[in-house]
Amino acid sequence: MRNVYVIGIGAGDPEQLTLQAVRVLADLDVVLVIDKGEAKRELTDLRHELCATHITKPYRVLTAADPDRDRTATDQVGYTGAVGDWYDARAEVIGALLRDEVSAGESVGILVWGDPALYDSTLRVLDRVEQRGTVEFGYQVIPGITSLQTLAARHKVTFTGVGAPVHVTTGRRLAAGMPAELDDVLVMLDGSETFAALDDPDLDIYWGAYLGMPGELLVAGNLQERKAEIVALRAQARARHGWIMDSYLLRRRRP
Amino acid sequence: MRNVYVIGIGAGDPEQLTLQAVRVLADLDVVLVIDKGEAKRELTDLRHELCATHITKPYRVLTAADPDRDRTATDQVGYTGAVGDWYDARAEVIGALLRDEVSAGESVGILVWGDPALYDSTLRVLDRVEQRGTVEFGYQVIPGITSLQTLAARHKVTFTGVGAPVHVTTGRRLAAGMPAELDDVLVMLDGSETFAALDDPDLDIYWGAYLGMPGELLVAGNLQERKAEIVALRAQARARHGWIMDSYLLRRRRP
Repeated sequence: MRNVYVIGIGAGDPEQLTLQAVRVLADLDVVLVIDKGEAKRELTDLRHELCATHITKPYRVLTAADPDRDRTATDQVGYTGAVGDWYDARAEVIGALLRDEVSAGESVGILVWGDPALYDSTLRVLDRVEQRGTVEFGYQVIPGITSLQTLAARHKVTFTGVGAPVHVTTGRRLAAGMPAELDDVLVMLDGSETFAALDDPDLDIYWGAYLGMPGELLVAGNLQERKAEIVALRAQARARHGWIMDSYLLRRRRP
Repeated sequence: MRNVYVIGIGAGDPEQLTLQAVRVLADLDVVLVIDKGEAKRELTDLRHELCATHITKPYRVLTAADPDRDRTATDQVGYTGAVGDWYDARAEVIGALLRDEVSAGESVGILVWGDPALYDSTLRVLDRVEQRGTVEFGYQVIPGITSLQTLAARHKVTFTGVGAPVHVTTGRRLAAGMPAELDDVLVMLDGSETFAALDDPDLDIYWGAYLGMPGELLVAGNLQERKAEIVALRAQARARHGWIMDSYLLRRRRP
């Protein structure tokens, strides 16, 4: 059996690795990397640094070219279908690498920013590799600190009011508006600055970008008062880094 | 200044500590413990073990008796009010301990199971201590792995469908039913086994208890087929341990 470990490595701060992640990293034979191109070179470098620091024996790096993804879909059904096709293409690439480049008994790490359970495709892709049945392997999941947890820690806020729910969603979904029955919503993957289109006067925003990394940015306050500042910061930061990853909590002021 | 660290210590597995938590623990002068009585002695022992393992110098343990909480409220308003009073009482006790028992420059750790942002009162209590202004201190938050992340890792599932939202809520809130517009709901603090009252035939449940601990229990499958088994397991486990902490993901089967 090939042993695959899907390892949550935290939001960007190397100190967010858990002792479990450190132990598993130490013993890897292979690191499997899905190449996302030059844009996020900082993230790639950071990942290589984690490997160099914690893997205690010689290891191989296998790089899978990320298959092209159809980004033309405009509705949710088209989007989900395009993403499904892309998962299949990834499963094909990763299954072939595991079969042809990894020997039985070897340990393979797939390093995931944040936590593998939150808006990451690795588990869905491995599930498809398993269903294809073209390579024998087992896998385990190591949880990691997400950017949302880092966001809350930096702003010293909780996700929820007392005994209240919290909703975790994407910018794409938030475009329909802040759900009326919810007071606390965590938003990821909002490349379109959906927050800036919301006009509720009673919303506070706790925003953060590059959380846990050297260029970390934080803004908190009333959404209407702060949104222009966040939009400007995003534009500057994206120009400087070439990419941006941010997230935020929207919180309705309670009476 | 007294330096207070609110440290997320993971769901129960000592290996879920982050390197940041280990570094901060190593340098503590004081561990502040809120005594929750005998029932959860296993958890108290585990916390002492973490301290003994990672704190590298002599340290003091300050124990705050947990103030009584009015548990008679039957609606959300009464519940929130009772919890608010209890936070005030906790803030009084903790403020006095920090003022009288900790010297300026000392480091104080408050160890929180899971993550301080998720259904934990420590940040709200410290906010109240700060507002009272009776003691000078600063505080930082160290994120930790939650039981929900451990649950997802053990079951090898993601929290969400592709680009979909996830709702995190309590058993108390779920009593109103599985929200019709949601496919993925994570539930904590469900002492009343609310899941067992849901009759939707198309829900799957991924359930776990004592996650990350030696007595870990996991069940997954169709809710209607598995709920009796989970109710029975909960009763047995609670009788054996004297307490239970569990959580689950409810997932609607997609067409």
